[in-house]
Amino acid sequence: MSVTAAAGFTAAGVHAGVKAGGALDLAVVAADRAVPTAAVFTTNIAAAPPVLLSRRHMAQAATVRAVVLNSGCANAATGAAGDAAAMAMADTLAGRLGERPEQVLVASTGPIGSQLRVEAVIAGIGAAVERLGSTPEAGTTAAKAIMTTDSVPKESTASGGGIVVGGMAKGAGMVRPDMATMLAVVTTDAAVEAGRLDAALRRAVDGSFHSLNVDGCASTNDTVVVMASGASGIAADGLFDELLGRVCRDLAHQLAADAEGASRVVTIAVEGAADDASARRAGRLVADSALVRAAFYGGDPNWGRLVGALGAGDVAFDPSAVTVAFGDVVVAKDGVAAPYPEAELLEALAVGDFTVRLVIGSGPGSAAVLTTDLTPDYVRFNGERS
Amino acid sequence: MSVTAAAGFTAAGVHAGVKAGGALDLAVVAADRAVPTAAVFTTNIAAAPPVLLSRRHMAQAATVRAVVLNSGCANAATGAAGDAAAMAMADTLAGRLGERPEQVLVASTGPIGSQLRVEAVIAGIGAAVERLGSTPEAGTTAAKAIMTTDSVPKESTASGGGIVVGGMAKGAGMVRPDMATMLAVVTTDAAVEAGRLDAALRRAVDGSFHSLNVDGCASTNDTVVVMASGASGIAADGLFDELLGRVCRDLAHQLAADAEGASRVVTIAVEGAADDASARRAGRLVADSALVRAAFYGGDPNWGRLVGALGAGDVAFDPSAVTVAFGDVVVAKDGVAAPYPEAELLEALAVGDFTVRLVIGSGPGSAAVLTTDLTPDYVRFNGERS
Repeated sequence: MSVTAAAGFTAAGVHAGVKAGGALDLAVVAADRAVPTAAVFTTNIAAAPPVLLSRRHMAQAATVRAVVLNSGCANAATGAAGDAAAMAMADTLAGRLGERPEQVLVASTGPIGSQLRVEAVIAGIGAAVERLGSTPEAGTTAAKAIMTTDSVPKESTASGGGIVVGGMAKGAGMVRPDMATMLAVVTTDAAVEAGRLDAALRRAVDGSFHSLNVDGCASTNDTVVVMASGASGIAADGLFDELLGRVCRDLAHQLAADAEGASRVVTIAVEGAADDASARRAGRLVADSALVRAAFYGGDPNWGRLVGALGAGDVAFDPSAVTVAFGDVVVAKDGVAAPYPEAELLEALAVGDFTVRLVIGSGPGSAAVLTTDLTPDYVRFNGERS
Repeated sequence: MSVTAAAGFTAAGVHAGVKAGGALDLAVVAADRAVPTAAVFTTNIAAAPPVLLSRRHMAQAATVRAVVLNSGCANAATGAAGDAAAMAMADTLAGRLGERPEQVLVASTGPIGSQLRVEAVIAGIGAAVERLGSTPEAGTTAAKAIMTTDSVPKESTASGGGIVVGGMAKGAGMVRPDMATMLAVVTTDAAVEAGRLDAALRRAVDGSFHSLNVDGCASTNDTVVVMASGASGIAADGLFDELLGRVCRDLAHQLAADAEGASRVVTIAVEGAADDASARRAGRLVADSALVRAAFYGGDPNWGRLVGALGAGDVAFDPSAVTVAFGDVVVAKDGVAAPYPEAELLEALAVGDFTVRLVIGSGPGSAAVLTTDLTPDYVRFNGERS
């Protein structure tokens, strides 16, 4: 139950033939009519053709009818042929649904650098449209069809005040054999116009997908879309923002938990920054460090590495005012080592997820960045030839 | 033969008692008199007390007489006690040599967050001054005394036109159990005033230590010092710049080759950038990617990851104009896959060092960034508890 949880949406997943062996590789999520939609795309300079096309469509169309997503090929670094393939996907789905092409968004995920099998995808879109359904199974099949190296489909729903928000996602910063693509589609039956939806999505993404850092790289294909059918007849309010945030955070946590080769999800909770954006940047600096993440793997409360990684960045802080805590145990205070019950802490860190708390000043800014440990398995998975 | 290769310098290495078990842990490199000196320090916001002190001394003194370096403790994140310890090191050596404290530089390397054993270091400085010598063995003993997890001491010399340049270095971006400290001391008998020496050092460091990227982090303690005795009576010229660059590049390559847990040194050669600085930034973006470095480990010519990592940064380039080559084999051209003899390439990448060439435009800027592969051993070494 995910993208079909909210009234006004249907979904389908099929095997189009991009992946070998009959695996699901193409999903469509459609609203019953063109509806207010917001999207956030990768900032990667080498953004893939489907991203470039979807960005254009978002700028051209006031409303969006459907999203088509394929796995098995990122359609990235594919040049003019890749542009044509992305356009063919939008044109085909728009034709089937009786809409203009700019009312369709396109997303792709998989290896970079190989061309998409356009005929297969076009046929798959036709098959998917025929199977569009509003059942939980239809939503789950769509969620499965966008998986690459994910071991499980990622779905989440939240509801309250008569409003339903549901979403699906795939990947994160550890997809083999290529970059790190993260795709998510979220639907809601709240009544909300596009401008407000865009603002709500950006806030939700900042606190979820943008706070998830496994490989430190925005991929060529990252895309998050939210569509609002208004079928509930209830206008979006603060509760809607909360539900949207909850679904996005839950999906982001599922992505981290399923990260390839990772054995722990670690939350970097930063406090005392000048503002939330600085706190998030600080958390990402720590989460970007291979040395820090290797220490997480060993359950090593190595706070010196954290401070060193923080200092290597461009977020201002006073090193002599830093506090570091693993879970509830403070290991450094005022920038120097603090005595702590070592055996207990090491025991607590021996297995499983944990939170590192970093106080970097006395400002009002805070953020929680999710990352994973860096493990020998990660290197083995990602070091294999594609 | 390293820091004692050039006339006018002596060196010594002793066991002061910072490290356990009698290992060498304190080095002094001294000129026969205070001489023109230049230094480059870490940009880490949490720079350690010895770095802060040495920066102040460089600003105060026109000439420098000696450098004292200890291993086994970074004296970082040590607060006021750390400041006092660094000052005690400078005061002690200055007193022994009959100079003012600001004519002494201090460098430390080892774990972050524990206090330096000041009494041991003070006694060690006395012992080192008594053993100062100009023999090759004295230089090598000093190079050994600054090792942390290095498996071999790093020394290099170059000479020509009557000028000698020699240097020693330790570490790189992979030091366990803490950050990544890189220390280097270079000496020369060329006659060169401080301003020119500073400019030459900055150029040499840009093309060597600043182009070495193993963990993507400037440590709290990174320090490179060059001292010029003038004993040759020959004024520095273009040949001096070349010799200094050669010694720094050789030391940087030795650091990469000895990187803990690494199995290959990979050179990222970037061409066609707007300028050399942009090319270096582009190379570092690629070298910062855990996914890219894991692919290097497997010998996987995964050019899509390279383009994705490049695009995730802030170096402008046209994705449709990118060429990627592994060794001499072009695998992507004009931003899309190019046909290449796959079996041959995989065979060539199966073991050992290689170069990746990235053409990102038609500008005049180029740079070569050194990195290593990311291996399961790296994670194991760095994931162990200290």
